[in-house]
Amino acid sequence: MNRTEEVVDRILAGEVRTAARLMRELDDGRPEPREVLKEIYRHSGRAHIIGITGSPGVGKSTLTDRLIQFLRQKGKTVGVVAVDPTSPFSGGAILGDRIRMQRHALDEGVFIRSLATRGHFGGLTASARAVITVLDAMGKDYVLVETVGVGQDEVEIAATAYTTLVVTVPGMGDDIQAIKAGILEVADILVINKADRDGASRTYQELIQMLELQAHRKASAWMAPVLMTQAKDNEGIEELMAAVQNHQEFLARDGGKGLLLARGSRVRQEFLELLKEGIFRHLVKQLEGDGRLDRILTAILAQQTDPYSASEALVLETLGPLTPGA
Amino acid sequence: MNRTEEVVDRILAGEVRTAARLMRELDDGRPEPREVLKEIYRHSGRAHIIGITGSPGVGKSTLTDRLIQFLRQKGKTVGVVAVDPTSPFSGGAILGDRIRMQRHALDEGVFIRSLATRGHFGGLTASARAVITVLDAMGKDYVLVETVGVGQDEVEIAATAYTTLVVTVPGMGDDIQAIKAGILEVADILVINKADRDGASRTYQELIQMLELQAHRKASAWMAPVLMTQAKDNEGIEELMAAVQNHQEFLARDGGKGLLLARGSRVRQEFLELLKEGIFRHLVKQLEGDGRLDRILTAILAQQTDPYSASEALVLETLGPLTPGA
Repeated sequence: MNRTEEVVDRILAGEVRTAARLMRELDDGRPEPREVLKEIYRHSGRAHIIGITGSPGVGKSTLTDRLIQFLRQKGKTVGVVAVDPTSPFSGGAILGDRIRMQRHALDEGVFIRSLATRGHFGGLTASARAVITVLDAMGKDYVLVETVGVGQDEVEIAATAYTTLVVTVPGMGDDIQAIKAGILEVADILVINKADRDGASRTYQELIQMLELQAHRKASAWMAPVLMTQAKDNEGIEELMAAVQNHQEFLARDGGKGLLLARGSRVRQEFLELLKEGIFRHLVKQLEGDGRLDRILTAILAQQTDPYSASEALVLETLGPLTPGA
Repeated sequence: MNRTEEVVDRILAGEVRTAARLMRELDDGRPEPREVLKEIYRHSGRAHIIGITGSPGVGKSTLTDRLIQFLRQKGKTVGVVAVDPTSPFSGGAILGDRIRMQRHALDEGVFIRSLATRGHFGGLTASARAVITVLDAMGKDYVLVETVGVGQDEVEIAATAYTTLVVTVPGMGDDIQAIKAGILEVADILVINKADRDGASRTYQELIQMLELQAHRKASAWMAPVLMTQAKDNEGIEELMAAVQNHQEFLARDGGKGLLLARGSRVRQEFLELLKEGIFRHLVKQLEGDGRLDRILTAILAQQTDPYSASEALVLETLGPLTPGA
């Protein structure tokens, strides 16, 4: 048995130290862990992936913490990926929060991996996806993906979960606007956290109205519910998890039609992202190897061409026209 | 004179309405404005581009507002690109802030463009670069690029400015850590805003120490200064702009060696980003056109292959091996 096979077996057996080492090696940009990923990929696809996103300060981490606690009490194993520089999981928040999280560090049924800065694997999105695959292949029942709802990559990562929670808080009028701007359509469940604050019912009404406005544009028959929580006091968590389960059951209907669609969309995005990074890296190596990159950059700096024209010409030269022979 | 030439002439003459329309058209993903960009690109490169980045809540927008005010008082024209969902420029903050900003809307010497959500142009980074090019070609003396220091794209956009300000506030111990994590190396000038708060001198000491620790790793002879501001009360702005000018003079030394390097690195990143997007889009269109994409995704879903192996194989098939003939 070679090293790759050994690592694969250990990951599939859920071995924490092997998984942690693999994730570190992925971030270091080494080639061997990629071979492991290829092997374990076919063993992934069993975990239910829950995305948790929203603006900084809405309490995503506390909510994630409560969801871990709830799932563990039900005997479920949990993997967590935190792609959020403001998350205590990733080391960006106040000390009290961070200590509260660390109670899970001693629990063998929980595996937490934070991705605050980008590794060498090919961007934050690629790293997050790889970590999700590892946690899934390890046999975790649930994978929670906490991302800050700022920056398109972060929102995208949460959006490719099977069930995506978008978290907001009452009384931030402009927050609602920010949600409207693009994050609402990725929500399977909307959460108003810190619901004891003033303005919760107004926020609730506004969200319901927005959901109704966009309902006709949606392809899916799922209507996103709006839930109230006070994660700090552990209130509303059971109801939230019931909504998650409703969504799981919705996806499983008609022979798992919804889940198949969600999986198809995950696989499509994952493949296309890897292709984008892969084709670009390979091409740049070729351009650097034969001196073409230097020649192009020199021409742009000398204002003989511009980056737009130069990149278009190179793409055409490399891939040929869109309709062959035309 | 055709339409492209007419638009180019108007942009170069600094015409605000034409520029605003061009930027909207760019976001809509229309092809014509790209032709305009190609033409005006050679007229860009004269503005001094200042990046302003940092965590949400450090007062980047207020600082930007004060810098606009200062530069206008000196008779300089200013373009602003706000890539920050928490910025009042982009519509994400409290009403008071937003009203304060709008005083510049009546000033012909200031052009503000916010990019809160992604357009169709090819991602936030590509849009931001295009807007910078337009503002530069319009003849603005300074282009201020405000981005939230969360998310790699956002930091990268600020980092490609000629002078990058990294803004923090006192007393956020973990904020310093976040800065350490990657944002410090892009700073040409460090700003401690809200410097009347407790802990300002401690934050100052910590930043100085960190800068000394990383000094030996830096290729440039420039030592980033640490400045204190209270943007809200307009304090420290003159000193900050003096530091910006010092950095400008540093870049202009030895026949503009530093500026040439900075420009080279800007052009390199701009070209590579356009190439990455361009080669990927073209390839995906080809794959969709001949049915290959569907076949690959079906094979992954059937677990006959995985996204890693499938993308590697396709890259090799498309571009050939790295060493031809090997």
